[in-house]
Amino acid sequence: MKFASSNLKQTNQTREAPSLAFQFKEYMFTKLKQVNEALEEAVPLQHPIKIHEAMRYSLLGNGKRMCPILCIASCELVGGDEELAMPLACALEMVHAMSLIHDDLPCMDNDDLRRGKPTNHKVFGECIAILAGDALLSLAFEHIASKTKNVSPDRVVRAIAELGSAIGSRGVAAGQIVDIDSEGKEVSLKTLEYIHVHKTAKLVEASAVCGALMGGADVASIERLRKYARSIGLLYQVVDDKLDVTKSSEELGQTAGKDLARNKATYPKLMGIDEAKKFAAQLVEQAKEELASFDSAKAVPLFHLADYIASRQS
Amino acid sequence: MKFASSNLKQTNQTREAPSLAFQFKEYMFTKLKQVNEALEEAVPLQHPIKIHEAMRYSLLGNGKRMCPILCIASCELVGGDEELAMPLACALEMVHAMSLIHDDLPCMDNDDLRRGKPTNHKVFGECIAILAGDALLSLAFEHIASKTKNVSPDRVVRAIAELGSAIGSRGVAAGQIVDIDSEGKEVSLKTLEYIHVHKTAKLVEASAVCGALMGGADVASIERLRKYARSIGLLYQVVDDKLDVTKSSEELGQTAGKDLARNKATYPKLMGIDEAKKFAAQLVEQAKEELASFDSAKAVPLFHLADYIASRQS
Repeated sequence: MKFASSNLKQTNQTREAPSLAFQFKEYMFTKLKQVNEALEEAVPLQHPIKIHEAMRYSLLGNGKRMCPILCIASCELVGGDEELAMPLACALEMVHAMSLIHDDLPCMDNDDLRRGKPTNHKVFGECIAILAGDALLSLAFEHIASKTKNVSPDRVVRAIAELGSAIGSRGVAAGQIVDIDSEGKEVSLKTLEYIHVHKTAKLVEASAVCGALMGGADVASIERLRKYARSIGLLYQVVDDKLDVTKSSEELGQTAGKDLARNKATYPKLMGIDEAKKFAAQLVEQAKEELASFDSAKAVPLFHLADYIASRQS
Repeated sequence: MKFASSNLKQTNQTREAPSLAFQFKEYMFTKLKQVNEALEEAVPLQHPIKIHEAMRYSLLGNGKRMCPILCIASCELVGGDEELAMPLACALEMVHAMSLIHDDLPCMDNDDLRRGKPTNHKVFGECIAILAGDALLSLAFEHIASKTKNVSPDRVVRAIAELGSAIGSRGVAAGQIVDIDSEGKEVSLKTLEYIHVHKTAKLVEASAVCGALMGGADVASIERLRKYARSIGLLYQVVDDKLDVTKSSEELGQTAGKDLARNKATYPKLMGIDEAKKFAAQLVEQAKEELASFDSAKAVPLFHLADYIASRQS
């Protein structure tokens, strides 16, 4: 069956039987709360205090927890329980926090503001920021390996391989390098897509794949969720580019207009803002198509998530 | 049984039956060659070229491969084959290379010379150096998870947890933070030991433990190898401190006298050079004691390795 389109202002779906009524905001809030509690527990404030403070500073707080929630929702979609995916969900947020800390460094993007707060190196200094990032990255893998329960070790190993590949030199880091290399140059749409698919969508993809792995999915379901996630990952970036043009720093919680200021290639710049909006709508549709073969009741959260990413304002 | 002491100048042990005669230099050379071949294959030069060049620059070349060889030797000691431990051995070198790249950065140790070559950021710039380190770290875990064959996934998961813990905020990164915090301060012997146990010995410990895990060791053997490795890891650092005082940069392949120049705490500084030598001898003995319960023929490489670390000149 096909789903009707929805957005954040229209989340109480009643077109299904009452049992399928779905409160998306409530769903997101509940998952976010559970992920935040698990993250708090995963990185206690212990000796040496300073590095744990720096790790917690960037890990806890105001994040959207998009990757962890996608991971859990993918696990649940294929029949698994939240607890199976929670260590992996936390690991995804650790990896994400690491990439933000290192990305913000003076020799990288040189950003002062992130999620409405001073960036990690602004508070703790560059040296501790680098080490906190490294420690979050290694903790991510340790956490998956030591905290995942009731999943066959074979699947845990596959998830670790997936995550490692997603963030390494053929994944997120590849996107970062090509992004840096492209600054101040004429960039084709193909290169821009390479950057965003690698820099952003790879981790989103790994989130869905790893969640599905934890939930016991078969290969076909994993690959459908991979395609779904690739579309919403790219969508996330298209919307990000759009917001960078249209919003203020205060609304975004990070420095706005920085892409334009740096003469960086973005979708609105290469396509124009209207074409970028059309491309976003197309990605939402592509994502939803991949959900069509799943049980519609279980796929509702991911269906709404695509719309939520498309319509997000910060 | 007890082994007689040996050093690099006296490696052809004939006190055992001829079948136990052991050429340590040959052993090390063979293992080093095999590890180097596996590392070369693990990080091919692929797109994006620059990040892979930077990763290969610090990973390949002149390293001693102490951790990978210890990992393989531990695997073989408990009855496993080299191939079982090789992906883990490579991962250890990736993690080591990452920590050297990040350690050498201007905001950290600000070193220009490493293994006789300009440091990574001197060649590729800070930004790529940071990303190459991050990519090596994630590749390490990916490599273990995707390349380890014929080991039960349960053991692979345990090894990943061990390695993650060893290099994170309660391991190598903890040692680095306390080290940085201690610069220019009066440091007790206890703090110095904390720094070295965490900054250096934790990864050595993980090398032996992970190798033993891959080789199918029982818990008691794993814990004996852990203690052996902790002793030679600390020994490595005591010798390092000593060489920093007594050798030139050319002989070391890295900037000599830097600890003294920075007024950093070292064993020779806190104990005097003679006491530091005595402490080193004591660590060698402690390490050898842990080998006593293993089959003496199989333990020969690790026995010699302790002496080799004690007598190394660079």
